Amino acid sequence: MIVTPESIWMDVETIRGTAPLVHNITNYVVMNNTANALLAIGASPVMAHATAEVREMTQMAGALVLNIGTLSDAWIQAMFMAAQSAKKADTPIVIDPVGVGATSYRTQTAKALIAATSPTIVRGNASEIMALSDKDALTKGVDSIHEAEQAIQSARTLVETHQCTVCITGETDLILEPNSQHKITNGHPMMPKVTGLGCTATALCGAFAAVNPDGGQAAAHAMAVMGIAGEIAARWAKGPGSFQLHFIDALYGLSFHQIKTHYNA
Amino acid sequence: MIVTPESIWMDVETIRGTAPLVHNITNYVVMNNTANALLAIGASPVMAHATAEVREMTQMAGALVLNIGTLSDAWIQAMFMAAQSAKKADTPIVIDPVGVGATSYRTQTAKALIAATSPTIVRGNASEIMALSDKDALTKGVDSIHEAEQAIQSARTLVETHQCTVCITGETDLILEPNSQHKITNGHPMMPKVTGLGCTATALCGAFAAVNPDGGQAAAHAMAVMGIAGEIAARWAKGPGSFQLHFIDALYGLSFHQIKTHYNA
Amino acid sequence: MIVTPESIWMDVETIRGTAPLVHNITNYVVMNNTANALLAIGASPVMAHATAEVREMTQMAGALVLNIGTLSDAWIQAMFMAAQSAKKADTPIVIDPVGVGATSYRTQTAKALIAATSPTIVRGNASEIMALSDKDALTKGVDSIHEAEQAIQSARTLVETHQCTVCITGETDLILEPNSQHKITNGHPMMPKVTGLGCTATALCGAFAAVNPDGGQAAAHAMAVMGIAGEIAARWAKGPGSFQLHFIDALYGLSFHQIKTHYNA
Repeated sequence: MIVTPESIWMDVETIRGTAPLVHNITNYVVMNNTANALLAIGASPVMAHATAEVREMTQMAGALVLNIGTLSDAWIQAMFMAAQSAKKADTPIVIDPVGVGATSYRTQTAKALIAATSPTIVRGNASEIMALSDKDALTKGVDSIHEAEQAIQSARTLVETHQCTVCITGETDLILEPNSQHKITNGHPMMPKVTGLGCTATALCGAFAAVNPDGGQAAAHAMAVMGIAGEIAARWAKGPGSFQLHFIDALYGLSFHQIKTHYNA
Repeated sequence: MIVTPESIWMDVETIRGTAPLVHNITNYVVMNNTANALLAIGASPVMAHATAEVREMTQMAGALVLNIGTLSDAWIQAMFMAAQSAKKADTPIVIDPVGVGATSYRTQTAKALIAATSPTIVRGNASEIMALSDKDALTKGVDSIHEAEQAIQSARTLVETHQCTVCITGETDLILEPNSQHKITNGHPMMPKVTGLGCTATALCGAFAAVNPDGGQAAAHAMAVMGIAGEIAARWAKGPGSFQLHFIDALYGLSFHQIKTHYNA
Repeated sequence: MIVTPESIWMDVETIRGTAPLVHNITNYVVMNNTANALLAIGASPVMAHATAEVREMTQMAGALVLNIGTLSDAWIQAMFMAAQSAKKADTPIVIDPVGVGATSYRTQTAKALIAATSPTIVRGNASEIMALSDKDALTKGVDSIHEAEQAIQSARTLVETHQCTVCITGETDLILEPNSQHKITNGHPMMPKVTGLGCTATALCGAFAAVNPDGGQAAAHAMAVMGIAGEIAARWAKGPGSFQLHFIDALYGLSFHQIKTHYNA
């Protein structure tokens, strides 16, 4: 996979120019932030979870993002329905297995969703990715207790079983595809101190996947943009509270010059 | 309908002086922001959606705000129950048909709610208002693909059928009543880049309707205050992230002088 | 109960050093803010509400926080299940009876939860605490219409019946234990203008209870930290919008020096 400042910028411009609709079935904690991040990068977010409407909503969408952060049976049912609708329309599906490994409910749901949907991209932290293929891996609530590098073997298994892109985020972000692997080293240590930035990363994968048929490149572009916006925000921030708003401002104002200056693979 | 800086200010002062309770049954994405906007203007927000309590909560409230942004059957049932309770007590009802036109579930729910409640105010973007009376109108997720002026005929039909005020928001806000129409041109292009500012506009309609029996004036006052606070916030903001907090600060600090200086009809 | 800058700081350092997992079953309005506040003080928040997983999640947690702000039957069931799991593991339980007194549904639920769980800490505003033991007390939505001092007798009844700590927040915060009482006078008038800061106070009680077995001290430390961060934030804030982010920054950057300078009992 080839990832350059130019390839990143091309996708950003396409998102800004076409405002792809990204349908999110996501958790309560991050809905507001991920909607704002999607708007800031130029996409058009929609949240809808009722089984009575998810099929129709997904049909309009350029990408479907499924996030299991605050799960319940009704939402799981809606996720499967929406995924089926997305598959039929060849709409890219992005899955965030939040907290998988913390409870068997999450582990089973995430595995079943991935198996049923063959998603374009799975994005999680190292512990989550490990819990998807190693039955003994544990997650502390929704926080990782592993480094991205430790999850490579699990990610590789997922990639090969489901022919998808797996994106492991952490200090270093690793993007694995069937035949290649890419590393993004952008980002800032304050990012894990803001709730839901992982979920935002997943939502941005949705925006990029909506405009770029290459899942690996879409994921890498999303991670680069996350990391670069994070670095810009950190310069302006006094703490994770102000970081949050500067991050949205940075996404909104992101220029080719900033991407060229900051991009670090 | 007569809308002047003086009439706007009188309502703002009444809200600040009486802190009317505004009962919101609204969507997950915007609950936090709309609660903060209501607090900032001086009202007292409450969110409650259980069928076991909505009647009682509505009975205490000065206004009921129904917003279908993230719908499900249980919430729809609660909305109808709360609305019935509000009607009985002559409490103003404000409806936000978020994303109507995007799915038939939303279209049917919004139409049924409006028919059953004869709300005081319906507020939506142009596409949403059009979808309420034109079966062929479409909405892109929750974003409008039309200008306010294109929705005037649909709004007029709604006004006459339900004897309510219809408020179409966009670059220009149009407020239609049975016998008159009003235009507010305040606001800023960054506002649609912040998720849920439309929902905030609806919630503020609730606060103004709670202190002003004239639905048209209440809606116009709310839109003027939204637009003026938006203009003030935009001067301080670097992007939609910082805009959001400056907007709340602007609502909180809004003065008669600012209203007089900015108001644009 | 002895509360000093040193005792507060010791707990803050333990939270930052051990990042206790705090399991929240809380309301939709504040999930994002309370997660961010918990991260900012150094804890690890998780939100999970499905009956299929709450037991397992609580088993990993250092504290369980139950908040009835946006209630429904399924969530109540999950709260009881999680509480049972916490009791079995001797995990501290903190309860926030949001809006109790506003509807009988809330009053009954809060009373039943407290009776069934014998929580470590109950935190509420004066009206809420009064409504827990006085059947005639009323709450205006989720806002208090009483001063902390008026709720002392009700709090004392709760403390003695359930052998728990009761924390009444307001301009002055009162922390009552079986044999003692403590007062914290830190804080700022802008705090009630930000939605959910009471819920944040409760969540912080969870973080402190996770590292301090003395419930009274844990609650007092949490209230001191809330109030001090509030005072710092207020100096930087132009209104409740900017206050919110400065508050998170202040929690994140809180130093022993600031605690010593600001602490006011």
